[in-house]
Amino acid sequence: MLIFTSDIHRQHHSAELDGGQLIPSWECPERIDVTLAALAKSHQLQQPDALDATILEQVHSPEYLDFMATAWSRWVDSGRTAQTAMGFCWPSRLPSHKPPTSIDGALGYYSMGADCGITEGTWAAALSSAAIAQSATTAVLEGEQAALGLCRPPGHHASSDQFGGYCYLNNAAIAAQQLRDSGVPRVGILDIDYHHGNGTQQIFYERDDVAFCSIHADPTTEFPFFSGHTDERGDGPGAGFTTNCPLPPGTGFDSWSEALGHCADQLVAHRVESLVVSLGVDAFVEDPISSFKLTTLDFHEIGHRLAAIGLPTVFVLEGGYAVGAMGSNVAAVLDGYEHE
Amino acid sequence: MLIFTSDIHRQHHSAELDGGQLIPSWECPERIDVTLAALAKSHQLQQPDALDATILEQVHSPEYLDFMATAWSRWVDSGRTAQTAMGFCWPSRLPSHKPPTSIDGALGYYSMGADCGITEGTWAAALSSAAIAQSATTAVLEGEQAALGLCRPPGHHASSDQFGGYCYLNNAAIAAQQLRDSGVPRVGILDIDYHHGNGTQQIFYERDDVAFCSIHADPTTEFPFFSGHTDERGDGPGAGFTTNCPLPPGTGFDSWSEALGHCADQLVAHRVESLVVSLGVDAFVEDPISSFKLTTLDFHEIGHRLAAIGLPTVFVLEGGYAVGAMGSNVAAVLDGYEHE
Repeated sequence: MLIFTSDIHRQHHSAELDGGQLIPSWECPERIDVTLAALAKSHQLQQPDALDATILEQVHSPEYLDFMATAWSRWVDSGRTAQTAMGFCWPSRLPSHKPPTSIDGALGYYSMGADCGITEGTWAAALSSAAIAQSATTAVLEGEQAALGLCRPPGHHASSDQFGGYCYLNNAAIAAQQLRDSGVPRVGILDIDYHHGNGTQQIFYERDDVAFCSIHADPTTEFPFFSGHTDERGDGPGAGFTTNCPLPPGTGFDSWSEALGHCADQLVAHRVESLVVSLGVDAFVEDPISSFKLTTLDFHEIGHRLAAIGLPTVFVLEGGYAVGAMGSNVAAVLDGYEHE
Repeated sequence: MLIFTSDIHRQHHSAELDGGQLIPSWECPERIDVTLAALAKSHQLQQPDALDATILEQVHSPEYLDFMATAWSRWVDSGRTAQTAMGFCWPSRLPSHKPPTSIDGALGYYSMGADCGITEGTWAAALSSAAIAQSATTAVLEGEQAALGLCRPPGHHASSDQFGGYCYLNNAAIAAQQLRDSGVPRVGILDIDYHHGNGTQQIFYERDDVAFCSIHADPTTEFPFFSGHTDERGDGPGAGFTTNCPLPPGTGFDSWSEALGHCADQLVAHRVESLVVSLGVDAFVEDPISSFKLTTLDFHEIGHRLAAIGLPTVFVLEGGYAVGAMGSNVAAVLDGYEHE
């Protein structure tokens, strides 16, 4: 499979607040090193083209993009010395208000938490990650049956105007929007990351041209906590175009596989003509921050099943924190996909 | 003046996320030591009576009280070792959803940020602080013209079901509700802390029996960022009973004093018969986390002006982080109040 990757992601490694302590984020540069090592033998690696940034404004608000582009310099200008810019309070359960102008207030307004922040290199890495998603999508539009964007930072938690969950620009949404802009009438997004793709859901929640399906840990007990329930099914013209399959802690492949079948049925029902897969591999049994029980063999089977959907497919990398096994799990999905 | 205080507050000293770093909270036990030292010579100190906890459910939701009472043990049971329990993500700009059951999710749901958290002794200290407010209120109901509760932790940022801003139980709201329950038909709350009393506002926002007036730093640039604007004036039966006077960074006593006059007029217009003063002294010129320019002499004048309102008054301590000068500033308010 054609795989897009770039070194620019190394410029980003955020701190995160975890268990009341600031630690280097689980979402680390080594994730890409290990994945590349596992993929390099059997796949063709390629640098992305320069980003056509016009796509960003179709997915994110201008205010958010301006915030992201300037946040680090504002942080430094405000006299802060910490290497990760983070807010300290959020508009928690407050639906509407005015965006604050101070950097601390804006960090809260434009994010969902302290699980990640903005470093000196975050914006460059996020733009590079978006370029990777865009190039993978272009490859599929130009005739590849499938392509993988080794996106880092990941994207599916980033909404139209908030970062969080290690995500800053929504790569899956960028891919889906690009497919739409290129004439694909109906696009499906299948999010198989362990965590609900709240950002992707929010971006397309009121649209009927992009169907969003997600299999993830029940938000009652798992991040992102505040979305991903079954009764979130889209709104307005998008009513029915969002499908959430939350699963309980400890879920193994039997139940997971059933959910995949349900999502595949939904994508068929919505007659989507291209697919974007938010490819997290953190449903893996040994993932340090997850509770599902999928094995590397299961990921191989998932690849099979995704291929069987029979659609041109853009894979974008999302989560996966068992760094040692991450490459094998991504490779297993691709291998299963290519040898159905 | 009769002053209520207790040593139990020492059991609470949270960490806080400030400038991307976890530090011991500015809201520290020494604040009370210094204040007591300044007040002990001229005032009568008294221990609070045991808390009549029935008042809590009139101000806070049962779910929140249950969360607060159990949060620390849930944190420890979940295997966390950090000495301050903190969430890592929040329902940022999400108006409605289901409360998560996991401790991490619940910490986000029931709080507004990582600017404070829950330690082993936080709940005991918060209950003691509420008892102090209650005893000060009882003293006024029994005939004292004024009494001061040296509440720590403070309370005015705590809403009906969220902690934040160093606050866990809303002492000013408890005092106001107790006055109402004891037959005072209309109660006023005057919040002169540097930061908007978002919690107090929320608790009484739809009520016409408790008028809330606040003088504070413009939330566009200052914590709590997401409330405290002039156009927040109450809702439903409470429409017009909330008065916010946000002032720009660097405000000195002239403008501050005008706002005090406006608030006093509002209290008169609402014909309140008793007053609760949320007494923060962080508008002080040397406060390390604030930007107003009030001097100790100004606080003396504020005491005069509060006395001139001519109502039985319960003072509850809120913020103030220039620890060295804090006692003098509180003493100046009381001295001004008693020698008008």
